[in-house]
Amino acid sequence: MTIKAIVFDAYGTLYDVQSVAAITDQAFPGYGEIITQIWRLKQLEYTWLRSLMQRYEDFSIITRESLAYTLRCLGLKNDHGVFERIMGKYVHLDLYPDAMATLAALKNYKLAILSNGSTDMLNSLVANTGLERILDAAISIDSKKIFKPAPDAYTLIEANLGVAPADVLFVSSNPFDACGAKAFGLRVAWIERVTPAAMAAACQKSDLVAPLTMFRAIRMQMDELGLEPDYRVNGLSALVEILSLMP
Amino acid sequence: MTIKAIVFDAYGTLYDVQSVAAITDQAFPGYGEIITQIWRLKQLEYTWLRSLMQRYEDFSIITRESLAYTLRCLGLKNDHGVFERIMGKYVHLDLYPDAMATLAALKNYKLAILSNGSTDMLNSLVANTGLERILDAAISIDSKKIFKPAPDAYTLIEANLGVAPADVLFVSSNPFDACGAKAFGLRVAWIERVTPAAMAAACQKSDLVAPLTMFRAIRMQMDELGLEPDYRVNGLSALVEILSLMP
Repeated sequence: MTIKAIVFDAYGTLYDVQSVAAITDQAFPGYGEIITQIWRLKQLEYTWLRSLMQRYEDFSIITRESLAYTLRCLGLKNDHGVFERIMGKYVHLDLYPDAMATLAALKNYKLAILSNGSTDMLNSLVANTGLERILDAAISIDSKKIFKPAPDAYTLIEANLGVAPADVLFVSSNPFDACGAKAFGLRVAWIERVTPAAMAAACQKSDLVAPLTMFRAIRMQMDELGLEPDYRVNGLSALVEILSLMP
Repeated sequence: MTIKAIVFDAYGTLYDVQSVAAITDQAFPGYGEIITQIWRLKQLEYTWLRSLMQRYEDFSIITRESLAYTLRCLGLKNDHGVFERIMGKYVHLDLYPDAMATLAALKNYKLAILSNGSTDMLNSLVANTGLERILDAAISIDSKKIFKPAPDAYTLIEANLGVAPADVLFVSSNPFDACGAKAFGLRVAWIERVTPAAMAAACQKSDLVAPLTMFRAIRMQMDELGLEPDYRVNGLSALVEILSLMP
């Protein structure tokens, strides 16, 4: 039982989806944070709802529809230019600070992304951020027309890399994705970016802090879905040590 | 094209899921609202995630797991008694004030519930709130082992009532459910309990109000899923007039 490939989730794991907040705040001063949180919440919901309704649309459409929902809910009027400028950030998201060094340190493994992102937006993002040269593959779930955590999405790893699920370490900071990968039979490292203690402490500060903190943190606590990741780490760079300790 | 049956969603449509807030606030003073919102959010997420992961558990288990998640996230310690007292409210939820009179006024139609609730919890809720005598059926999606908005869940209406989808008026305040029913081919009335203007106005009041208002209201705005309900009404009682105007 040796790890032969390390496969990363993209949005939220290698790439900081919260990095859209600067652009949304520039477009709508004071609303940057709240737009970012609702947008991400609805973006994920729409992947699950469209999968369940058997009405798949690709992630670029879902990302647009969830942004449109967000701006409408908040009563924020916008023109085409503003909308496109915000959307444009999705192919220029910030890498987490330790992403590049971690990938470089793991270059003896097959390295890939498995992402909900559509083929086009994922390829643009990877090219724009310099990961093209490091990754062996950037796999979009698009060909399956169903989003993670459906088992079908995870079959694409073996289909693309030729590595069996038990020989793959799947890395995600999204609890639903870590659970879906584990249910499928991959070995899973979950990036726990907000500790339970930090979350609980923040929620107790005040009524003002609690809801926004909660919004940011709510997807960063492990879900209660009867599944446990194999490893919990506090950042990408911790993967290097975990892998060095494996037989 | 005549309506022969009116089928209601239960949680959020006939029954006010926010009515757990009094009990959660009694158990954890100051946290009633925030517990209620996270609990509901994760409860719905878990129905979608477990459906997609093909790891169905019934709604009573999901409701427990999402409550456990919520209390853990907020750092709230609890004992068995407190947990069970909160859970107990789910079979004694408050009916919306206009629910009983609306159902009575529509008694010449076949009347039913189609709910994500497990058979046991749905039957208890219906019995505890006096709807047993008014409804022709309380249908749980449990036999299909997949939650709304999966098409399979909505097939249970015709299977149980013998009424074709086009002859059913499906009533829900949950946008995802209204969209799922519409995608399946039912005629759909969506209960819009928070107008877009009210939502936007509340969000602009202050940083304090916005996140909590948003949490309450976020599921009450129509989703961007490429589907539109046939009717938008501001409450259950408005159904009586809509039906009186149908040919």
